[in-house]
Amino acid sequence: MNAIQIKNVTKRYKNVAALHDVSFSFESGKIYGFLGRNGAGKSTLINIIANRIFADSGEILIDDLPAKENIKVHEKIFCMSEADLYDAGLKVKDLFKWINRFYDSFDLDKAFEIAGKFNLDTNKKFKALSKGYQSIFKLTVALSLMVPYVIFDEPVLGLDANHRELFYDLLLKDFQHNERTIIIATHLIEEVANIIEEVVLIDQGKVLLQDHVSTLMEMGYSIYGPAKEVDAYCADKNIIGYDELGNLKIAYVLGEKTPLPKNSNLSASAMNLQKLFVKLTEKGGI
Amino acid sequence: MNAIQIKNVTKRYKNVAALHDVSFSFESGKIYGFLGRNGAGKSTLINIIANRIFADSGEILIDDLPAKENIKVHEKIFCMSEADLYDAGLKVKDLFKWINRFYDSFDLDKAFEIAGKFNLDTNKKFKALSKGYQSIFKLTVALSLMVPYVIFDEPVLGLDANHRELFYDLLLKDFQHNERTIIIATHLIEEVANIIEEVVLIDQGKVLLQDHVSTLMEMGYSIYGPAKEVDAYCADKNIIGYDELGNLKIAYVLGEKTPLPKNSNLSASAMNLQKLFVKLTEKGGI
Repeated sequence: MNAIQIKNVTKRYKNVAALHDVSFSFESGKIYGFLGRNGAGKSTLINIIANRIFADSGEILIDDLPAKENIKVHEKIFCMSEADLYDAGLKVKDLFKWINRFYDSFDLDKAFEIAGKFNLDTNKKFKALSKGYQSIFKLTVALSLMVPYVIFDEPVLGLDANHRELFYDLLLKDFQHNERTIIIATHLIEEVANIIEEVVLIDQGKVLLQDHVSTLMEMGYSIYGPAKEVDAYCADKNIIGYDELGNLKIAYVLGEKTPLPKNSNLSASAMNLQKLFVKLTEKGGI
Repeated sequence: MNAIQIKNVTKRYKNVAALHDVSFSFESGKIYGFLGRNGAGKSTLINIIANRIFADSGEILIDDLPAKENIKVHEKIFCMSEADLYDAGLKVKDLFKWINRFYDSFDLDKAFEIAGKFNLDTNKKFKALSKGYQSIFKLTVALSLMVPYVIFDEPVLGLDANHRELFYDLLLKDFQHNERTIIIATHLIEEVANIIEEVVLIDQGKVLLQDHVSTLMEMGYSIYGPAKEVDAYCADKNIIGYDELGNLKIAYVLGEKTPLPKNSNLSASAMNLQKLFVKLTEKGGI
């Protein structure tokens, strides 16, 4: 089976359990949202998969082969991460060329093409780039490597809204031509809700939930309209959150949709995934 | 008049104009969204207001007094910024105490209280904090300073969704008790849409737009439903963007709302501010 299999992985830092007997799989050819709060254990697991740190126990299999210190496996996977693993004193164009020498599957022309779309100045040194453009450099590298498994760890940190949209567009276009496994760890849940197919939600070092986005979306819905009407409709509902905008209100409702009152000014729309996950990962949960 | 007045401010870096004859005011007692793309000039203007860099020409008045190197003025304003202006080797609790000695208006108890709400470990050194927690440290300081003008520059960078909600809640509660001027520079436009009252949008070193959020929201609306019905309804409309989710679609429409077809499965809701600003700041604009 083509997949990343995580088997009973445990990792402790001093006295804190970062991951506690975690088992699940990322299957081949899907786009995953890998979600969880700061400190939940996401980055620890990504670093174990990427062979940067080692689990205390358990193992990772990639395409059925143990991933630990296995070069044949690590040619198949690339992980874009928050940490800066490059010589920050080099210019972007020289970093591209340096990466091109190390990775057979790096597409140098594509890297320059993507950099152009983001107006990334390839003559600048990495350390002279703004935080947003440092993220853009890293996601450009990840999008230009033709490996079967790509992990994006906070790919849009510091990006403006236009560049975030551009990244999501490029990612989906790439996926249409080249169906590989893409794992996106992000805190901007609502923005990736219509890109990802499946969600793995980590909480306090354990898998809290793994499911299809479409199934999660059916857990509830949103109701929008004048605040008084929203409140009246929601009186007997299980509400996980509200947003207000002047006299208008949006309520995020768990459960199956009941009919809207006749002649009301209410409208119903899809579940808000971010509100759902905030609620699920609050102390106590739903 | 109580306000921050920006008067004909121009600033060049080498041959690049970062700000070009910019004039506008932040009025007293409002919450502003200070928006714009990466590189638009936002941080440059914030740094000029905060007296960290100087304009080539023009001036800033705060409560009618020139802000440049004026200590009486700078006791009234605090700017939380991306740059790390603190001794990163100190522990959070010692940084709080250090800030407390320099700022009369710093509320040390409040700082520890807010840190507790975010589970910020005050025994950790600043440099040992994750990016998300470095942001949390900075916004905690900003929320604990009782000055009449507070500028937040990317306050939620790296924060998870739960902590972003907590920040917005704390900000609004603080504002209800203590109506001061709050300026939020952020790329997460949609998340602050129901917090901010007025928007200043900077583009290519100029003010592109200054308006009330309620006025901007009236520029259009969103339509949600089965993709085919959405497409049919939108055929003669000015569409600034789409999102798709399986067979469902959201269209972001500019212009006044026309009636929905009878017996349709469509529903209408509020304008998406982020989509509007992405469109406004694209090459060519709307």
